[in-house]
Amino acid sequence: MTLYVDLAEQLGARIEQGLYRPGDRLPSVRALSLEHGVSLSTVQQAYRHLEDQGMATPRPKSGYFVPPNRQKLALPKINRSVQRPVDVSQWDNVLELISIPPGSDVLQLGRGMPDISSPTLKPLLRSLSRLGRRQSVAELSYGCIHGDPGLREQVSRLLLDSGCQIPYQDIVITTGCHEALSAAICATCQPGDIVAVDSPSFHGVMQALKGFGMKALELPTDPLTGISLEALELALEQWPIKAIQLTPTCNNPLGYIMPEANKRALLTLAQRYDVAIIEDDVYGELAYSYPRPRTIKSYDDDGRVLLCSSFSKTLAPGLRVGWIAPGRYLQKVLHLKYIGTGMTAQLPQLALAEFIESGHYEPHLRRMRSQYTRSRDLMTDWVRRYFPVGTRISQPHGGFMLWLELDSAFDSQRLNRALLPHKIQIAPGSIFSAAGKYRNCLRLNYAAKPDAHLEEAVRIVGATVAQLLDSDH
Amino acid sequence: MTLYVDLAEQLGARIEQGLYRPGDRLPSVRALSLEHGVSLSTVQQAYRHLEDQGMATPRPKSGYFVPPNRQKLALPKINRSVQRPVDVSQWDNVLELISIPPGSDVLQLGRGMPDISSPTLKPLLRSLSRLGRRQSVAELSYGCIHGDPGLREQVSRLLLDSGCQIPYQDIVITTGCHEALSAAICATCQPGDIVAVDSPSFHGVMQALKGFGMKALELPTDPLTGISLEALELALEQWPIKAIQLTPTCNNPLGYIMPEANKRALLTLAQRYDVAIIEDDVYGELAYSYPRPRTIKSYDDDGRVLLCSSFSKTLAPGLRVGWIAPGRYLQKVLHLKYIGTGMTAQLPQLALAEFIESGHYEPHLRRMRSQYTRSRDLMTDWVRRYFPVGTRISQPHGGFMLWLELDSAFDSQRLNRALLPHKIQIAPGSIFSAAGKYRNCLRLNYAAKPDAHLEEAVRIVGATVAQLLDSDH
Ligand SMILES: Cc1ncc(COP(=O)(O)O)c(C=O)c1O
Ligand SMILES: Cc1ncc(COP(=O)(O)O)c(C=O)c1O
Repeated sequence: MTLYVDLAEQLGARIEQGLYRPGDRLPSVRALSLEHGVSLSTVQQAYRHLEDQGMATPRPKSGYFVPPNRQKLALPKINRSVQRPVDVSQWDNVLELISIPPGSDVLQLGRGMPDISSPTLKPLLRSLSRLGRRQSVAELSYGCIHGDPGLREQVSRLLLDSGCQIPYQDIVITTGCHEALSAAICATCQPGDIVAVDSPSFHGVMQALKGFGMKALELPTDPLTGISLEALELALEQWPIKAIQLTPTCNNPLGYIMPEANKRALLTLAQRYDVAIIEDDVYGELAYSYPRPRTIKSYDDDGRVLLCSSFSKTLAPGLRVGWIAPGRYLQKVLHLKYIGTGMTAQLPQLALAEFIESGHYEPHLRRMRSQYTRSRDLMTDWVRRYFPVGTRISQPHGGFMLWLELDSAFDSQRLNRALLPHKIQIAPGSIFSAAGKYRNCLRLNYAAKPDAHLEEAVRIVGATVAQLLDSDH
Repeated sequence: MTLYVDLAEQLGARIEQGLYRPGDRLPSVRALSLEHGVSLSTVQQAYRHLEDQGMATPRPKSGYFVPPNRQKLALPKINRSVQRPVDVSQWDNVLELISIPPGSDVLQLGRGMPDISSPTLKPLLRSLSRLGRRQSVAELSYGCIHGDPGLREQVSRLLLDSGCQIPYQDIVITTGCHEALSAAICATCQPGDIVAVDSPSFHGVMQALKGFGMKALELPTDPLTGISLEALELALEQWPIKAIQLTPTCNNPLGYIMPEANKRALLTLAQRYDVAIIEDDVYGELAYSYPRPRTIKSYDDDGRVLLCSSFSKTLAPGLRVGWIAPGRYLQKVLHLKYIGTGMTAQLPQLALAEFIESGHYEPHLRRMRSQYTRSRDLMTDWVRRYFPVGTRISQPHGGFMLWLELDSAFDSQRLNRALLPHKIQIAPGSIFSAAGKYRNCLRLNYAAKPDAHLEEAVRIVGATVAQLLDSDH
């Protein structure tokens, strides 16, 4: 174990044991350096490691502190209702969420928007601007169907961090992760087929299954470790499942990271029953721990995993640039890509390739990871403070989404209507289920820089929840 | 009839009668103004009208001339082979065409690229550059699912020129015309359904039918007036056709404009048999005559026409911005759009809205129309000069594509292989047919500014064709 990890673990243990209490100042870098006989930079590394894990918070000019107390709220419950393949519903509720134009005065706590105000995005905007001016075939023409070779090489390089060795020839650029997921679903399944999914699950996939006429089988999903492998095995025994679709790393909406052992076990099951795995890794690079977790794809040795991702959550969704590493389904995916959109726009691809190649991506990720870690803690605190007792809450290990569970009679669609006059919108839980379960749940976005305005919004949501709960009794 | 149209028709008649011969200088604007007692600007308008019709060519500082002789080559034959619904093939040949990255040193006479070097594009590039620099939610966030309201308003206004009164609420922005067409097909048909298509026909649609598991019924298509309505009626009697998909205005690849009466008759047939019409208008604004021809959609009174288009042919395909006016299928199309790509990128939408609103679009179209008219004449001339006697050729009235038909034994895929060492690629005819017909045909792009280099390329293609034909005998 390296020195700094060792030191971080010692400090972490002291915090866990209550030697340092929430809000306490932690020993200075200099003091620790003397005490442990290590260099200043080793101590700094140790503190950054603790920070990544949410156990220390830096304050400008005053050193590191133990984050404010999080009186542990209970985790959301695992949904164990009868599992059978169902046709997907909920389009009306999704449509409501995605019909609001950007720049409207509604505070959209329900959408999957990252923070796009970071100064680390500037070099990307400069590239966009410079390349946007060029009157050349490179930007204005049809690209090649696979996407820009330069960008594909950069993606191939990024994938190394998740344990994947995928040559750029096996990567196809897509119009966002949406297109990657749709192509993956259509490449592996026919109308009428059954797809097993984590639950709650990203509404885009639910709606794709609906649109293409497939059935969703929602698996019980643990809020800390992901889908139940036992339940999956039972389902594979019982139903002719064609594909498993899931977001195992920094899950949306639950925020968990599936343990590596589970990822491997999942792949083994998929091999045994010969089903494809559609792995959504769109938040994978926003895991709070470093180095980032491995993907299921990284263990894939027979090309059955279709890895789908995009720059929508790490950089900006307006770019609409994603990718897919479709394994043995490459040819089918190329065809689907062609009929879906022809090609992906050239300009953002070229700007992204330039941004990553110039080394701007890693520092940006680093910054966003620690910003989102702090925001998670703050948001969790606010929920504890402003929401009714008994509210259950997820413990995200990456991304920027919080999942809340309320009394089983609660209706989050009603909550959204009650929030209308306050110009606040949350994501109602039901859209994360094929069958419209999770009406008593909601998802909150904590990507935006936390400020008094945001705190006030959370207070209003909490108070409105309380009112609705009261009026039910 | 307005004065200038009157004058243009008189002049046109004299040219037709051989009073002025190919290459002759036409009377000066001043002379005609005196002769007919009309203003100088009326004469100028009349000349522009003749120019639009390909009957007069301006030369800088020397006035108008009758375009060089076009010894009439015969038109392509109408394919009357047995019509029955078939599964689409030909993906391999399409893939070859679309796998070449932009900037390769292959002269791509086979792709659907417009000329992107016009100075009238500059304001668009300036907008792209300026907006690309902005770090704001408007450009970087998810837009709303329908697309940018400002751009939709501009598209609604443009549609007036084709006789359509469509409020912006009924227009959905898409990722190119590809996405519009795919959504239209999936909104109106199920896997296994039969779609009637013009033939030859755009390969993107053929492949979409293949991908979604529908069958194509190729209708005999006249190279000057489009699909045979008699054949369509017979087919509608005989088969459970769900939709008719066609490009009636400036057809790709044949270049014809379906007469208005035929468009109306087609709609009546569709109403009688209750089938949807998927109208591709992607080249409609590039009709050489002005005002532009009406769309079938403009006669639609029960929402059965899904109008699909994009800025790919009029401005630049790299933008990947298209639209669909889906009539009664709006809700289904929105859902398909969501699962296909989520949203369309914001930046190009905003830049396009600005470009059109500032009045830059009409002058650009005007310029491209007359450039393409002249290029058609030149290209036709070159084909006459450099291709073997007996070559049949289309007479495009819009767009920038020429369709050539050779001896029935000719193989245009072999031609492409023979052209490899010359680094020239043409589009083999077979990809424009579901069943791989038209192997003896090819499509040439004449969008690029004609120069000696292009002429030499056409000469090489012609000579290679002759060699292959000879070696067959
Ligand atoms: C899990 C997950 N996958 C995919 C997407 C869609 O990504 P993109 O915007 O790149 O299409 C989202 C965004 O909401 C998401 O949360
Ligand atoms: C008739 C026709 N429709 C649609 C398209 C595709 O247009 P877009 O590039 O906007 O997807 C093309 C381009 O090749 C075409 O020729």
